[in-house]
Amino acid sequence: MEQVLSAQKPLPGPRALRKQLGDREVVRICVVGAGRAGLIHARNIAKYVRRAELVALCDADPTTLNKVGEELGVSKRFTQFSTALDGLEFDAVVIVTPTFLHRDIACMAAQHEKHIFLEKPMAVTVAECQDINAAVQRSGVKLQIGFMRRFDASFVRAKETLETGELGRVMIIKSTGRGPGGPGGWMLDLRKSNGIIAEVNSHDIDTLRWLVGQELECVYAQAQNFKCKEAQRAWPDFYDNVVAQFGFEDSTMGVVDGTCPAHYGYDARVEVLCERGVLFLGSVKQDGFTKVTVDGQAIGQAVKSWRTLFKDAYLAEMEHFVDSILHDTPLRVTGLDGLRVVEAVIATNESIRSGRPVNITKENPI
Amino acid sequence: MEQVLSAQKPLPGPRALRKQLGDREVVRICVVGAGRAGLIHARNIAKYVRRAELVALCDADPTTLNKVGEELGVSKRFTQFSTALDGLEFDAVVIVTPTFLHRDIACMAAQHEKHIFLEKPMAVTVAECQDINAAVQRSGVKLQIGFMRRFDASFVRAKETLETGELGRVMIIKSTGRGPGGPGGWMLDLRKSNGIIAEVNSHDIDTLRWLVGQELECVYAQAQNFKCKEAQRAWPDFYDNVVAQFGFEDSTMGVVDGTCPAHYGYDARVEVLCERGVLFLGSVKQDGFTKVTVDGQAIGQAVKSWRTLFKDAYLAEMEHFVDSILHDTPLRVTGLDGLRVVEAVIATNESIRSGRPVNITKENPI
Amino acid sequence: MEQVLSAQKPLPGPRALRKQLGDREVVRICVVGAGRAGLIHARNIAKYVRRAELVALCDADPTTLNKVGEELGVSKRFTQFSTALDGLEFDAVVIVTPTFLHRDIACMAAQHEKHIFLEKPMAVTVAECQDINAAVQRSGVKLQIGFMRRFDASFVRAKETLETGELGRVMIIKSTGRGPGGPGGWMLDLRKSNGIIAEVNSHDIDTLRWLVGQELECVYAQAQNFKCKEAQRAWPDFYDNVVAQFGFEDSTMGVVDGTCPAHYGYDARVEVLCERGVLFLGSVKQDGFTKVTVDGQAIGQAVKSWRTLFKDAYLAEMEHFVDSILHDTPLRVTGLDGLRVVEAVIATNESIRSGRPVNITKENPI
Amino acid sequence: MEQVLSAQKPLPGPRALRKQLGDREVVRICVVGAGRAGLIHARNIAKYVRRAELVALCDADPTTLNKVGEELGVSKRFTQFSTALDGLEFDAVVIVTPTFLHRDIACMAAQHEKHIFLEKPMAVTVAECQDINAAVQRSGVKLQIGFMRRFDASFVRAKETLETGELGRVMIIKSTGRGPGGPGGWMLDLRKSNGIIAEVNSHDIDTLRWLVGQELECVYAQAQNFKCKEAQRAWPDFYDNVVAQFGFEDSTMGVVDGTCPAHYGYDARVEVLCERGVLFLGSVKQDGFTKVTVDGQAIGQAVKSWRTLFKDAYLAEMEHFVDSILHDTPLRVTGLDGLRVVEAVIATNESIRSGRPVNITKENPI
Repeated sequence: MEQVLSAQKPLPGPRALRKQLGDREVVRICVVGAGRAGLIHARNIAKYVRRAELVALCDADPTTLNKVGEELGVSKRFTQFSTALDGLEFDAVVIVTPTFLHRDIACMAAQHEKHIFLEKPMAVTVAECQDINAAVQRSGVKLQIGFMRRFDASFVRAKETLETGELGRVMIIKSTGRGPGGPGGWMLDLRKSNGIIAEVNSHDIDTLRWLVGQELECVYAQAQNFKCKEAQRAWPDFYDNVVAQFGFEDSTMGVVDGTCPAHYGYDARVEVLCERGVLFLGSVKQDGFTKVTVDGQAIGQAVKSWRTLFKDAYLAEMEHFVDSILHDTPLRVTGLDGLRVVEAVIATNESIRSGRPVNITKENPI
Repeated sequence: MEQVLSAQKPLPGPRALRKQLGDREVVRICVVGAGRAGLIHARNIAKYVRRAELVALCDADPTTLNKVGEELGVSKRFTQFSTALDGLEFDAVVIVTPTFLHRDIACMAAQHEKHIFLEKPMAVTVAECQDINAAVQRSGVKLQIGFMRRFDASFVRAKETLETGELGRVMIIKSTGRGPGGPGGWMLDLRKSNGIIAEVNSHDIDTLRWLVGQELECVYAQAQNFKCKEAQRAWPDFYDNVVAQFGFEDSTMGVVDGTCPAHYGYDARVEVLCERGVLFLGSVKQDGFTKVTVDGQAIGQAVKSWRTLFKDAYLAEMEHFVDSILHDTPLRVTGLDGLRVVEAVIATNESIRSGRPVNITKENPI
Repeated sequence: MEQVLSAQKPLPGPRALRKQLGDREVVRICVVGAGRAGLIHARNIAKYVRRAELVALCDADPTTLNKVGEELGVSKRFTQFSTALDGLEFDAVVIVTPTFLHRDIACMAAQHEKHIFLEKPMAVTVAECQDINAAVQRSGVKLQIGFMRRFDASFVRAKETLETGELGRVMIIKSTGRGPGGPGGWMLDLRKSNGIIAEVNSHDIDTLRWLVGQELECVYAQAQNFKCKEAQRAWPDFYDNVVAQFGFEDSTMGVVDGTCPAHYGYDARVEVLCERGVLFLGSVKQDGFTKVTVDGQAIGQAVKSWRTLFKDAYLAEMEHFVDSILHDTPLRVTGLDGLRVVEAVIATNESIRSGRPVNITKENPI
Repeated sequence: MEQVLSAQKPLPGPRALRKQLGDREVVRICVVGAGRAGLIHARNIAKYVRRAELVALCDADPTTLNKVGEELGVSKRFTQFSTALDGLEFDAVVIVTPTFLHRDIACMAAQHEKHIFLEKPMAVTVAECQDINAAVQRSGVKLQIGFMRRFDASFVRAKETLETGELGRVMIIKSTGRGPGGPGGWMLDLRKSNGIIAEVNSHDIDTLRWLVGQELECVYAQAQNFKCKEAQRAWPDFYDNVVAQFGFEDSTMGVVDGTCPAHYGYDARVEVLCERGVLFLGSVKQDGFTKVTVDGQAIGQAVKSWRTLFKDAYLAEMEHFVDSILHDTPLRVTGLDGLRVVEAVIATNESIRSGRPVNITKENPI
């Protein structure tokens, strides 16, 4: 327990930290946003991530805040992040708020020299991404975007397989992302969320970029609201199904399709067609359990939730973040990755609006 | 054997035929084009299709002609279809020539009151399709297009499942079609073949229309020549990979991706996302054989060929054609289906050329 | 049609036949027993098997006889095989009667110099098998037992894989055989049928012997009547579930489990554990069709019937039989194979009765 | 951190503990045996199990002891368990030593009123199991045997499905257990280990009993040493492959097959055939990753290790143990379960030795 106790000493600012943090130190983390994904991160930090300590929780909703605080035994609880910054010693922040709040919180954190783990999508606009990247660069803190698939064993194996070159270049990559539960609240407002292409399919867009290792150049997309008819009056541009076709700078072709709610489960599958073979990632079935009934139906269970499918990946990305802080090593997902996905998201929505293919403008990250 | 011998009597023309052909009769068929798919049809007719007799073969290449003729014991062999029409009694023609010859042969057959089974794609241009449909209507013969997937047990089960309504409406449909062997010869010339979107992915386009039960309205497509670099000089617009995104009249969204050659096998898979579930058709693995080696690789065999995957469907579509002639019953795949796919093919190529989404013009079928 | 007509000439007896039958001849076949499997064979011969002609049908039940005769256009129909032998020219017989009739019919056929295709199991007793083998040897006709799995593409691939030696020797082999429909009639009487270990699992026992390439030495088995309680009073030793554990002469260990009726489908799966890997054959699912419903159930269809699962194998074994007659080439499944399985069946039932492991007595085949 | 600090107070003995331990307490655990499975448990306790504290490690090998101690930051390290008992305050022991040491350590722990988590198999002999159960009963501590499959989500779903009765009674249950790495050292000596039927397939035997919910009555087994020829001279009765066929008291039939080393991976699959359907658990493939190469090989990865396959189950069983201590709730796996499996193991080895089926003697647990 000495380790933890010694961590109670204030850590130096990140620049100093790089020199001083040794193997025996602990990163003290404040989680901002204790909803669904926030709870995953908070639990991981509190219970599973080595050399991390969950020192505080922030959530605008006191009920959520106290519930999670009780569960994890975290007594430092704040309804405003600024209050946490004022009165608390910590090293890093994990931001899992609604997307439209990312910029302000992340910039504030950077100004206070807190390392930043920021859930996807990075922000709503390119300008917001640039603000965050600029603030991060100024303060010298680390910034990791929550593309946890890059830490999933199957995805990593796919990346490694592609990098060996044995299958030749990628020709077509397709990524399907569907969530079981419906988007609600602020996510219905495309001005706040950019829609499911951002909230759900950011992961798919990042998968395309990461596995191919090339930048996206253009997009043509279609979208429809098939299932959330009740949302149509208030949010006429909201869509619950989207198909986006991307062109890469090296001519690789990509397809992302997204649906939320899919109801039947959480469905994340990728197919990578190469010159000399093809890779498949994921399955609609969650495990090897099959029940065959008397009428000849062979019934398995669809994957229910990203919580189970990417459980290990969520933990691994947080361990990577903490290790990177402690050893001052490079991050595998950066603010540039976050920015590039937001640029693609915005171009996709522009294509949906205009009915035309749209070039993806790529800004300088800072 | 009496049945066959009695079939040697000249059959009356199709209009008369409808009244006279009873259950005991046999349809005498001339197969035009004895290459890959032609051989499948010729064998099926000669050996497996009830109430059908393979009475003659036509192929411009005498070597192919004689080889297949010998194999199937067909002594009536012609290098020109017109000669066959002149000197031979038969009821129906199965046309499996290069696509750019479809119109002339089909129209000639219709004029001579021969029922027509025409391989996909129906023709190269919309005008050609209309010529065929007009000739067929004038003469009153039957015309079936070779979309054999509509006769495959899995595809039929999908169609039936969708028609029950249990899954709700289709929201997104995706169809992948890849062939193991490379396109060659006249197929490299888009003016003669319309490329792989026609020669390979006609099936996928038809699958979209058929399963959704709605017409395609627009298309945006990308294409690249990744693997057939040697063909590029002579055929700069040839492509071996294509991704086409369709919009349906009822807002359903569709994606077709095609690759030829895929080398690893024949890969035909379809995914139909509905409001209350999803259907998957096909598998990259051909059967339940798995070999696990000492290093932990679990190795199955990819589907090798459409010949095996759709073997039963090829037979079933021909039996349907013959039954339809004998009993004068409606066909499940018509000249309208052929036309609609050619229209979509042409719009897809126009989108590839222009880089823009293209509306699919739908002509009156006759 | 000349081929068929020329086949109407009486063929010489088998010894002479071997010298005279050339590539252009046809084997004239009489099918004895027109029930389930008999119908499969009759249809294959009538429609699909090259160089075979279905010249006559025998069945004790006139209704079945006439129904199948009508379907296949076979006018020569007999309720007794002896009548067929007296008044008919033919070359070979396919015997698909109840097992307890195999010996008499096969011996009669051999005496009349007819080649014999005999459905599994070969006979009820070892003595009957020996009678058949002796009669066959005396007359010089060919005898093939209906182990069609040896002609299935997956099973052949397994055999070939094992023969390469890449996986090392077989250590454990397990074969599961379950039929959807219940055994009835004479099959309930173990004295006539030897029970499901013979009627259903003969295939599994043959699979063990064939894939391992070694003889079975001993067996220990258990059996229960779990589902056919109504049959228990009349047939107290009838069982609908059996597990039999075999020892091979080279110490390989084998397990067969059989169930009939399984209701949910026809389930034939084999697992072959070798020193350097493992092979799996078969799947409970019949194809790549999966329906995922809104509640997250991923539903496929179990294999329904051996008719579909082994359709190609049934055809291939008959083509092999016909080719072997025409070209006087060796058969891949012989009377010795039939005998060895019957010996294993009898030992299995003895083990069930006695509750003890039983050595499998292996007789000289003739 | 207060929770942990407060846990430093000596806990009262187990009988008193039941009254006093509230929700805020922590169970202090000493892990005895820090090898493969011991390390898993030690890591889980140190890092993941709520309300558990890893206070000490014991291992006869100082190198292992110090390595694991360093990794987990445990400074209290002992090469003898008796020393730990003398000088250390703790509440529970996790015993992961070689099997032949289980009895002495478990009895010593019980005498000192330590709750006991005991890895499978419970012990080498029935008498040893009875000694342990008697000691546990005398002292009133809790005893859990490490059958972690009972905590695996798929296995639990199978159990629940069977308990609904929808599939009817179990008729045949088969469980396959194969380990990738070879047994070595004391495991080669059947007098110390009872062989792989105990060390590997204890899990499968427990699975049979648990899923069927009935006791095993008799066993017939075969075993061979196919791969570990070098061990044969010193350990002539050692086997690396075993097939055991069980009869249940209610006539259900069971098959367990075990192989170690299997080399290709860790293979744990179960099939439960019921009157109205069948359940399958497990898969040879570890996930949805498939690579299809240019030659048409569809390659997945076999499950490598029980460490990954049952990772969550190992954690869940330990959490269950800790919860059961803290809340004094009944355990899901008891000393009776451990005893019953050892009885079946011993009967299996007796059957292998004698070549005869053997009745399984079931002793009173204490």
